[in-house]
Parts: sequence; structure tokens; C-alpha cells
Amino acid sequence: MNLLLLDEKDFIGPDKAVVSGRRFDHIKRVIKAQIGSHLSCGVVNGKMGTACLTSFKADCIEMEVTLDAAPPKPLPLALVLALPRPKMFKRIMESVTSLGVKEIYLINSWRVEKSFWKSPVLEKTSVERYFRLGLEQAKDTMMPVLYKRRFFAKFVKEELPVIGQDSLCLTAHPKTSNMCPASVNKRTTLVIGPEGGFIDLEVKTLEEAGFETSSIGDRILKVETVTTYLISRLFT
Amino acid sequence: MNLLLLDEKDFIGPDKAVVSGRRFDHIKRVIKAQIGSHLSCGVVNGKMGTACLTSFKADCIEMEVTLDAAPPKPLPLALVLALPRPKMFKRIMESVTSLGVKEIYLINSWRVEKSFWKSPVLEKTSVERYFRLGLEQAKDTMMPVLYKRRFFAKFVKEELPVIGQDSLCLTAHPKTSNMCPASVNKRTTLVIGPEGGFIDLEVKTLEEAGFETSSIGDRILKVETVTTYLISRLFT
Repeated sequence: MNLLLLDEKDFIGPDKAVVSGRRFDHIKRVIKAQIGSHLSCGVVNGKMGTACLTSFKADCIEMEVTLDAAPPKPLPLALVLALPRPKMFKRIMESVTSLGVKEIYLINSWRVEKSFWKSPVLEKTSVERYFRLGLEQAKDTMMPVLYKRRFFAKFVKEELPVIGQDSLCLTAHPKTSNMCPASVNKRTTLVIGPEGGFIDLEVKTLEEAGFETSSIGDRILKVETVTTYLISRLFT
Repeated sequence: MNLLLLDEKDFIGPDKAVVSGRRFDHIKRVIKAQIGSHLSCGVVNGKMGTACLTSFKADCIEMEVTLDAAPPKPLPLALVLALPRPKMFKRIMESVTSLGVKEIYLINSWRVEKSFWKSPVLEKTSVERYFRLGLEQAKDTMMPVLYKRRFFAKFVKEELPVIGQDSLCLTAHPKTSNMCPASVNKRTTLVIGPEGGFIDLEVKTLEEAGFETSSIGDRILKVETVTTYLISRLFT
């Protein structure tokens, strides 16, 4: 936790907040902060600044909060991901949040196991937890937004062209000779397939929607590795 | 498993191999290959090619192997990592192997928990397993080499300058204004600290050994995220 993420409801006055639960435990046991300690903090979807700890209770901490800085810039990226398996999904949500991604579409694909859509990791409170961990890690306050789209063809034909408007449109796919561009640093819509990749028909549907395939060479990476790899490659 | 990794000892003739255990299970149950199926294969630290399955037994598969291709190019990178916690260590070893890293130094640091050095994940057979998974994922055959160095100052002062000779020398560190260069594509020695970062004295020792600090901006990433991120940034 490099940033203490506060909610509006933590405030008991204009510049006074009280924090309990997981954040309290972390401040007490991991950071080992004391009265007078200053911590980086920020308000969800708001400004960042400093919290000065003013009193410890048995199960909560009171603090004085100064908010005077803007959160870091978001990445100009819409990330479209074939739903990964649950364990990987958690880590990917946390890491892409820490990297500054704010717009995530989860889509279905032939090689996505149907059961993944029923996983508790997709519940709203779970997803918000992964996002919070990512924001706390990277010192950011702006929550990503997650959209779930279970109908591949409908999404790709109807919604994706609108999302991709005025952006560089890419499908990450190992079996192509087009190398993924580097340092594009402009609005990009990036589609990443499931383990095993999109099937040919899906690749064709994506191409017809304006999403050319793009590879990173001979190596085939896991979805969680390639996601970070491509974000780093596209935005420098 | 995108590549079936064979050992010399799997061969029962110049172009005949037999595979059992984990690889057998994977071929049978996950890939669902049959007699006549062709699989990408490669020999550890050797050539790559194709295996044509010729017969299934109860617990093994026999195949005819043609080896006619070179493995993909290694990255010109020496990766020096403060020992990560065991769960993360496994994933990092697998992912950096899949990215083509061949030279890894694990070092101690003030913020590395002593107990991590006793973890079974550091045993030779464990490490080799993570490397194999990374090679099978990325379609590569060249095993990375792992060096463990428990004495930070001794390593940085005596050994690191030799490792870093004729290479770009970098320490990843969030608290600096030097931005990490991108697309350097030449021999690089990259030092990455533990969660929480190197302490000031360690940073100073690294600087004295020729390793300037280098950051990726305001965001602080987890070690496993930043490792992939920096490799992608340095080599395009």
C-alpha cells in the first residue's frame, strides 16, 4: 500500500477522516505508522495528498487530510480481454489498474471456459477490491470501469467499432507477421485473446471490425505477461 | 504448453523419443493429441522441430522427432533481482524465461525477508521446473542460468561491475527523476529491488558500482509487473 485510498464516507469533517478494517491493520502492522506519521493518501476518483495520523483507537485511526495534488494521468487505452481464468483475472485486474488502465471490456471467446463467467471474482465487490489494490500500489485514485460482454460477435460488430473510433485498433495474436508498433502514445484499443488464442473465425470478425492482428515475434506469452508487455510497448 | 520440451534422455534412438509423466498427461488430456498428430518440440539447450506421435502406451507416448530449427534469440540482458517472496518468485521465473531472459542473479537486500532464502522454491529442481514452464510457454529451448548471491555489498562491489561491463547499467528505482530509456536493444544489466525498494545505502552502493537509478514515472509497480514492463520497454 503506497497510497491510503479514502472514500467520501471515511470523512467525519472537511479534512478529518477515520479508517478501520484492512487499511487500519495495514497502517498499524505493516507500515507501523504512529501518531504524527504522514502517509500518502487520496480520495477515490478525486485528489491526492497527505494524511497526518492524529489518534489511534482499538480498531480505527483518525487523521487530518490535506488534498492538493492531481492523480497521475490515465493511459489512453481501452483494453478488451477475453475473460481469463479466475486466478489470473485477479492479478491482471490489479496489474493493469496499477499501470493506469481505466477502461476494460471482458469478452467471451470460443476458448473461454463457460464456468469462468460464474466465478465470484467477477462480482462487483471483488472487482472493486482488485482495482483498489492496484490504485493503492501505483498511487492513483481514478477507478477503472469494467464492462462484461458475453456475446462476442454482437460486441465486436456493434460496440467495438464505436469504442475503437479515432484510436489505433489492434488484436494481439501470435500467428501473424505484423509486428506490434511501439511507443504509439495515442488513444489505442487493444484486444487480447484467451490462452490458446482466438480461433480463426474470431480473428476474421475482429479484422472486419478494423482490428488488424499484431504480434510481438516468435514468443508466445501468457495473457498476464503479454498484457503488461504490450501496455509497456505501446506507451513509453 | 506450446512446445514439448525434450531431454537427451527421452531419446531411444537418433530420432525417436518417449515421453511420460506430466508431459504425457498434458499431451493426452489437454492437447488431446492422437497418433499422427504433430507437435512443436525442442531439445533442452538444443534445436527445435516437430514431433510426430507414433504410439500411445498406458503411461507414455512414442514419437518421431525432426529437429531443424534454431531456438529464438535470447535477450541481451543480465537481470539482477532482490529475492522476491516465494509465490511471486515462481511467477517471475516463469515469465522472464518466457520473455527470453537467460542470466538471472538473485541478491539479498535490506528489505528481503531472511526466511525467503530458505524457501523450497529456490531448490534446483523447483527452479528448473519454472524455467521449463517458461520455455514451453514461449517456444524456446535455452535454459536460463540462476545465480544466488546472499551478500549484497560484496556482490555489488566485486561481481556486478564485471557483469555490467560493456552494458547499459540500470537500477530500477521509483524515487528518481531519471526516466528509464526505451528501446535500447543492446546488452543491459538491470537491477530491480524488493517490494518497498532498496534503502538509500544500497542505492548509493549501486551508484558507486556504475548503476544509475532509473524510474518509469510516478506509478509504483509490483516487482512482477515492473519486471515484465521494463523488459518490454528496453527491448522492442
